[in-house]
Amino acid sequence: MKVGDRNFRTIWLDAADNTVVQLIDQRKLPHDFVIEDIRTPEEMATAIREMHVRGAGLIGAAAGYGLYLAALRYGDSFEEIRKAAALLAATRPTAVNLAWAIERQLKEISRGSNAEERIRRSRETAEAIANEDAASCQRIGEYGVALIRQLASKKNGQTVNVLTHCNAGWLAFVDYGSATAPIYAAHGSGLPVHVWVNETRPRGQGSKLTAWELGQEGVPHTVIADNAAGHLMQRGLVDLVLVGTDRTTYTGDVANKIGTYMKALAAADNNVPFYVALPSSSFDWQTRNGRDIPIEERSDDEVKAAEVWSNGVHHRIALAPNDSPASNFAFDVTPRHLITGLITERGICPADEISITGLFPERIAS
Amino acid sequence: MKVGDRNFRTIWLDAADNTVVQLIDQRKLPHDFVIEDIRTPEEMATAIREMHVRGAGLIGAAAGYGLYLAALRYGDSFEEIRKAAALLAATRPTAVNLAWAIERQLKEISRGSNAEERIRRSRETAEAIANEDAASCQRIGEYGVALIRQLASKKNGQTVNVLTHCNAGWLAFVDYGSATAPIYAAHGSGLPVHVWVNETRPRGQGSKLTAWELGQEGVPHTVIADNAAGHLMQRGLVDLVLVGTDRTTYTGDVANKIGTYMKALAAADNNVPFYVALPSSSFDWQTRNGRDIPIEERSDDEVKAAEVWSNGVHHRIALAPNDSPASNFAFDVTPRHLITGLITERGICPADEISITGLFPERIAS
Repeated sequence: MKVGDRNFRTIWLDAADNTVVQLIDQRKLPHDFVIEDIRTPEEMATAIREMHVRGAGLIGAAAGYGLYLAALRYGDSFEEIRKAAALLAATRPTAVNLAWAIERQLKEISRGSNAEERIRRSRETAEAIANEDAASCQRIGEYGVALIRQLASKKNGQTVNVLTHCNAGWLAFVDYGSATAPIYAAHGSGLPVHVWVNETRPRGQGSKLTAWELGQEGVPHTVIADNAAGHLMQRGLVDLVLVGTDRTTYTGDVANKIGTYMKALAAADNNVPFYVALPSSSFDWQTRNGRDIPIEERSDDEVKAAEVWSNGVHHRIALAPNDSPASNFAFDVTPRHLITGLITERGICPADEISITGLFPERIAS
Repeated sequence: MKVGDRNFRTIWLDAADNTVVQLIDQRKLPHDFVIEDIRTPEEMATAIREMHVRGAGLIGAAAGYGLYLAALRYGDSFEEIRKAAALLAATRPTAVNLAWAIERQLKEISRGSNAEERIRRSRETAEAIANEDAASCQRIGEYGVALIRQLASKKNGQTVNVLTHCNAGWLAFVDYGSATAPIYAAHGSGLPVHVWVNETRPRGQGSKLTAWELGQEGVPHTVIADNAAGHLMQRGLVDLVLVGTDRTTYTGDVANKIGTYMKALAAADNNVPFYVALPSSSFDWQTRNGRDIPIEERSDDEVKAAEVWSNGVHHRIALAPNDSPASNFAFDVTPRHLITGLITERGICPADEISITGLFPERIAS
């Protein structure tokens, strides 16, 4: 998608030196646009853990490229590649795309009998993961735009107000995004759409990332405090909630950025449709109950402070007393009964086991 | 309540020069503790509008003292005092204590036939408003502590986890606080209590004020992002929600800091009791439907940035792109059916018209 006048993905192989992976260092947004070079799987693990890259699809793609870098470095030893895979897998516990991409890569790499083959296979797989992610998001946009078109028609062409939480934009994937794909498709086809952007404390992925990418694409939007979503819905100012997910069980329970659950409660209380957009790589085909999804806890410093980069300088201000402890669960689980539907690359379905496995029948066998 | 080893109120007449009102400049907390001198009603209006002081009871007390300063300055002219009252009344539209205190002061001042009498009456009334506020909060503590005692007993003496939003602490009143009064009473009587403190973006009254005052009193607490409350309730980590209110209709609808409504939805969804603590000065005896309460909109800059004072220096960081607009509704309305009960200075009652007017029968006639 657009950054200024140029099109970017979030992660790619350096065209000049394809032993280097390049990515947008998202910690620096919205004020600084910085591209980082990643040369080793260890550097990639750091980039994922410390959230230079984040978001369901992008974490998977980054892990895929990380294992290509591992094959480049440790191609002679599958054991060393497996160690790199374990390092990458341990970076973020909730995101299911991570495990999915690593498993896929290891299976492919294991088929190579020497370093050269392992490197070739891992590179092809990393590129395939990235390309499929982009293609899935594009299809999510094609299916999801129908919802916005219906609402616009119901409103006689008045602006459709979509509320989103965190960043399930192109920055969270390789391109297009999940929750944003229908929005970009609507905007691109001339439908009048406006986005309420939850700032998404503690890390501010909404105000820092979603607002930035919508702005670059020229999509009208307004940043709000996370506390404001309920009030806007009570006042009839939200027509549709569209969010992403870091992991959705095959039964339809949705793990997503902390705070999603309360937005879903508010949507249900005000009869606002609540949709979750995801490529099938974000489904967890093993876990039946959303309560069993592990919830990452991050440093209390993220809650006690606010931080931002500007002109290459890191700014941090302490918002709470130094002596006060803080807690920082990164995700919560929205139970399926609060979800109107899931938007996948194969279409829209209700958030229940029969509908989900009906759309992806090949996963039942596995 | 305690600041270090000393006891403070939030606002008081300077003992050395009682033409000066002193108050804690709450914009500077939690890092800087600064006492500000206020000498004119215009300065008091600025202090209220720009939130040097804030919170239901304290706004009322500040307006009361502001009209004493008006009487000192314009004692010869009731018309000038009335102008000062209008200036004070326009500072914050949602807080009902403001209108209540101003009306009470004007009635008293109007009974004085000369400057000296007006000054005397306005001083007595300002002091009475402040003292009654403190006394009401103390009684709220005495009634509310019973809820915490019951929960502690039900939990066999394990720690009772109370979640609160914004600051309905002593900093929001003259002393004790509304939502915090039962907590301080419980802590003071040795009941094991721990408080989850919502940071309360955009202004951070939770992390900056509630965490600070609980810390000064030695009450165990943990700061959380506003997004986290629902998850904590899903996990059984919250036994009781206790919040304040800026205005509650006589039918039981509660206007409070933006975000309260979604916490109430989460409490209802998880069977967590949700109580609102308020002195009767926060009741609106005219408005039947919470939807008719005017909701203050504040500067978008509060949402787009985070700010804090430290060692006398103001720090501000921009969290959103400069070009992105933001919206900043300061309050929302929680409908009565989501509220377990109200804790007033006359006892605890359900949030409905019959119960509220039953507890305050003298207000029906008015």
